[in-house]
Amino acid sequence: MSVNPPLGFLFSACAAGIKASGKPDLAFAAVPDGASAAAMFTRNQVVAAPVRVGRENLRASRGRAHAVIINAGNANCATGPDGLKAARQVCADLARQLRIKPAQVFPSSTGIIGVSLPVEKITQALPALVREGSATTEGFNAFANAILTTDTRPKTARQTISFRNQTATLAGVAKGAGMIHPNMATMLVYLFTDVSATPRELQALLRPAVEESFNCISIDGDTSTNDTVLLLASGKSGLQLRSVQKQFASALQNICRSLAQQIVADGEGVKHVVRLRVEQARTREEARRVARAVANSPLVKTAWAGADPNWGRILAAIGYSGVKVDPARANIYLGEQQVCRKGAACDFDKDAAHACMLLPEYVIRIQLGSGKACLDFLSSDLTAEYVHINADYST
Amino acid sequence: MSVNPPLGFLFSACAAGIKASGKPDLAFAAVPDGASAAAMFTRNQVVAAPVRVGRENLRASRGRAHAVIINAGNANCATGPDGLKAARQVCADLARQLRIKPAQVFPSSTGIIGVSLPVEKITQALPALVREGSATTEGFNAFANAILTTDTRPKTARQTISFRNQTATLAGVAKGAGMIHPNMATMLVYLFTDVSATPRELQALLRPAVEESFNCISIDGDTSTNDTVLLLASGKSGLQLRSVQKQFASALQNICRSLAQQIVADGEGVKHVVRLRVEQARTREEARRVARAVANSPLVKTAWAGADPNWGRILAAIGYSGVKVDPARANIYLGEQQVCRKGAACDFDKDAAHACMLLPEYVIRIQLGSGKACLDFLSSDLTAEYVHINADYST
Repeated sequence: MSVNPPLGFLFSACAAGIKASGKPDLAFAAVPDGASAAAMFTRNQVVAAPVRVGRENLRASRGRAHAVIINAGNANCATGPDGLKAARQVCADLARQLRIKPAQVFPSSTGIIGVSLPVEKITQALPALVREGSATTEGFNAFANAILTTDTRPKTARQTISFRNQTATLAGVAKGAGMIHPNMATMLVYLFTDVSATPRELQALLRPAVEESFNCISIDGDTSTNDTVLLLASGKSGLQLRSVQKQFASALQNICRSLAQQIVADGEGVKHVVRLRVEQARTREEARRVARAVANSPLVKTAWAGADPNWGRILAAIGYSGVKVDPARANIYLGEQQVCRKGAACDFDKDAAHACMLLPEYVIRIQLGSGKACLDFLSSDLTAEYVHINADYST
Repeated sequence: MSVNPPLGFLFSACAAGIKASGKPDLAFAAVPDGASAAAMFTRNQVVAAPVRVGRENLRASRGRAHAVIINAGNANCATGPDGLKAARQVCADLARQLRIKPAQVFPSSTGIIGVSLPVEKITQALPALVREGSATTEGFNAFANAILTTDTRPKTARQTISFRNQTATLAGVAKGAGMIHPNMATMLVYLFTDVSATPRELQALLRPAVEESFNCISIDGDTSTNDTVLLLASGKSGLQLRSVQKQFASALQNICRSLAQQIVADGEGVKHVVRLRVEQARTREEARRVARAVANSPLVKTAWAGADPNWGRILAAIGYSGVKVDPARANIYLGEQQVCRKGAACDFDKDAAHACMLLPEYVIRIQLGSGKACLDFLSSDLTAEYVHINADYST
């Protein structure tokens, strides 16, 4: 991003020593005049302390936020009452320095589960973070970089909305990598805009945008304890959301989709992004269940890693998805090649199919022959590198 | 097995050229005087042709079987009407040679999906198979060997039952490796006994034995299209099932559990068998769902591969299992070490936990604190070798 972030926000980041690597691990965003906020969280029943505190704070502040503080390297999850206390302390400390209420601070954490949050490392770093808050692209990029864990690159997206000579900006930042799954997974997403909107208006737009993007991806089928999508609107552009409602909804969806795609493409060990297009399903929910079964099958995903056009494994996954299907009506296409017709093998060009599967991103179409609903779902291959990355994360 | 198989059965096997490797790929069992039969099949909606034919035949013969014919190297699945015809042709050819009805033949196939069954290779091999049928341990072992695919070793178990100077035998053979999951997965199991029983009596005992064994294991979460468990009783021992009902039920359960354990231990790339013991669940079904979520989590399984006591991933999987749990009541034990108390970290000896996880088999106990039901579930780690094995299976 070579252009400015939305108006009304200040960004900064630093290395507070939470990550053993010494890389940046603390990100801060301030909204000096406050922002309307909407959020969605993990559906995992095991919920990290910052997620509980973030939810409480949004309720207590009636959806107004003045600051966001995120640490990477420690999830502050399964840390008991001490973990809650730690998350609240970070908020209280930051609030005191900014002269706001603790409930106006929104906290997030990502990293290892079950290890106490090093609160002091965070609180010691806060004064400098506050001092260095910047409205520049550099500040924004530093923020995007400090929230990463095993990600290999920052994930950002930006779009502008114009109406009668006025322009508003919507910019998003995401952190993904492993544990990515529909219903969100250690995935942190922050969306900043300078349109003017109420928390209720934002929430109404955020939910469908998340459903169509972050809830349509899967890397390993795991659902994390810390997932958060936060949308903040500073109002500083002067543009009212209601005068650009459709444009804004579309921009929000684009940005969420772009970030979702970037998350999958940068999944742990991922070599191929596979866009599953489930067609002719009875309902979108059934299409999603079929897509999930395929996207989460280790046999399917390892075949993708080997660029192996083994469509039988896809058909088998459709068969155990839990959705009632008639295999004799199922068609499967690998790129342009039809590889399965009415549930049975059909002649296809194996070399062409293999070549398609060597691309960094390609489409697999599944037609169920039972209805008219369709859905796009992003998935990835399962490589030996994924195993190596995850076999020794905590040790 | 150095002792004789059950009375009334003849076994043989050969290399019919279905496997490209030239290894044995065709297994045959004959019951010259017929046997009562009971069977359970995959719950996948995509069902291989031999499974459909096997089910039809058992119905048509009213649960009487005279022969079993199994090929490895080709699943005869997703092969359309031609696949069904092929499976029926194998049965008809064999029936003609044995002078029995085609419905008295029980067929199975395992291997790649979506490739036409090479019927001629099978039918050409049948005369020699029939001629060489043998009641010896060598014949039985050859049978056990020829049904394997990516398995590294045959899986057999045997137990005798005595009553008033009479002895009956129950012997089982299994094929497992990849795609193993509750609800059965390219898993073929053949159980032979010489007790005397009706098909209905056998079915009543087979179902609970399968539920407690093969439906309590998972390697990769995939459910195959060809799973079959067949139980045949020749009656040749002279012992009536009803006089040894309890002993037989217990032997059947032992043998199924032993074969299930062997299947997991020989799963593709498996280095560690993990016995998940879910305790204090509301119901056994809830315990099973929790166990499945943990057993199928790639993040959990890769941590096991690295002998990494990362219990946070286990807690996260419990949280998204779909079973209502209160994380604040959950305890987790790695071997003898408690690693999580009331949903939070507790001090434990990391070296001891790591050492325990280096064992080829160990127990992880999960206490949910919500009831009295408990369940044992066998799972395994996910290694880079699994990926290598499955990344180029069809090419």
